[in-house]
Amino acid sequence: MYCGAQVTLSVMSDDYVAVILGALSSLDPYRKDLRMETDDTSTLMIGPPDILFAAMRDLFTLVVKSGHHVTMHALVSRGCPGGPQLPETRSEPGSTPPPLPLSTRKQNALVAVETASETGQIISAQFAYYPLGQPPGYMTEINACIDFIDESGTLDRKKNFCTKLRGDGAKVFKTLEGVFVSFAPDDAHITLDLMLSANSPTARDK
Amino acid sequence: MYCGAQVTLSVMSDDYVAVILGALSSLDPYRKDLRMETDDTSTLMIGPPDILFAAMRDLFTLVVKSGHHVTMHALVSRGCPGGPQLPETRSEPGSTPPPLPLSTRKQNALVAVETASETGQIISAQFAYYPLGQPPGYMTEINACIDFIDESGTLDRKKNFCTKLRGDGAKVFKTLEGVFVSFAPDDAHITLDLMLSANSPTARDK
Repeated sequence: MYCGAQVTLSVMSDDYVAVILGALSSLDPYRKDLRMETDDTSTLMIGPPDILFAAMRDLFTLVVKSGHHVTMHALVSRGCPGGPQLPETRSEPGSTPPPLPLSTRKQNALVAVETASETGQIISAQFAYYPLGQPPGYMTEINACIDFIDESGTLDRKKNFCTKLRGDGAKVFKTLEGVFVSFAPDDAHITLDLMLSANSPTARDK
Repeated sequence: MYCGAQVTLSVMSDDYVAVILGALSSLDPYRKDLRMETDDTSTLMIGPPDILFAAMRDLFTLVVKSGHHVTMHALVSRGCPGGPQLPETRSEPGSTPPPLPLSTRKQNALVAVETASETGQIISAQFAYYPLGQPPGYMTEINACIDFIDESGTLDRKKNFCTKLRGDGAKVFKTLEGVFVSFAPDDAHITLDLMLSANSPTARDK
């Protein structure tokens, strides 16, 4: 599976460079499984979805622990047919096992959220989920995904153009990973527009 | 047209609250045409696309002028069939004039970029363009959009999952507006995942 993200981490502090550099150690356990490239706008991370979400979770929640107001954007994508080809993240044809039944995938995703080891950091996350080029019958999967979000315990509210989650960083990231991996065929083109925020001085609802 | 954005502005400074509050005056000329709501993660702006892009440009480039490293994310959407209904931004059926020929729309978009009054602020912008639920023949429009970007003078490079622009803030925002409004039917569901950055200490290419 060709899977990855463009990630931009922003720390509202004069010391933002030191704060971010200090948090990069959180990525060490994942570096052997991720390809990374940084420019002035984002860091590309290419790798399997479970590694990618764990890496983003550990990086973000460690920076949140600084107490500064922090935001992180990630354009997360899998199955993108365009752009540079990355054979190292592609599955061999026939190597993917047949998918589990939809109800099993949803139940497994809920268990993953429920059993996630808490980070102690409360975060907000809003996302738009785009299943691209899917056939119309695909709404069964979308509806199961919506039920999963409703039952995840992390739903804050539905907003214009996106859905907002709030809760412990581990549970929020497990919900996002569930949305991303559990409700479409392995070869589907799926993207998430994901915006995270923590320690904001602005009220959650106005 | 139901059009709007969820916008998150991040300033890498201890004084970020003062910097952002000080820049909000840039939105004054647009307030009568925009509905806005802020929470801890983003500010919703609902209004016509030309107003929306001008407001985002003026807000971002004024904050960039502070010299701080600044990022801004916008989930920009038009024609979204779900979510809260906003009659004030919907066109009456039959009120939309027939579209101009594709070559005219592309040419008009290029002229708009070329003649944009420069802001004096150089910015980077990367975006993913999602035309949702479009018929397969729609690739003619997509290809014209790609040509428009190639000829805009603002293309920096194509990256994994997105396209990166760089240049004066006015020209970059006019390119983004052209991508968003000029290459799909008025009632199409189009989204942009847009990430802006300026004054970054990180090299543009690594």
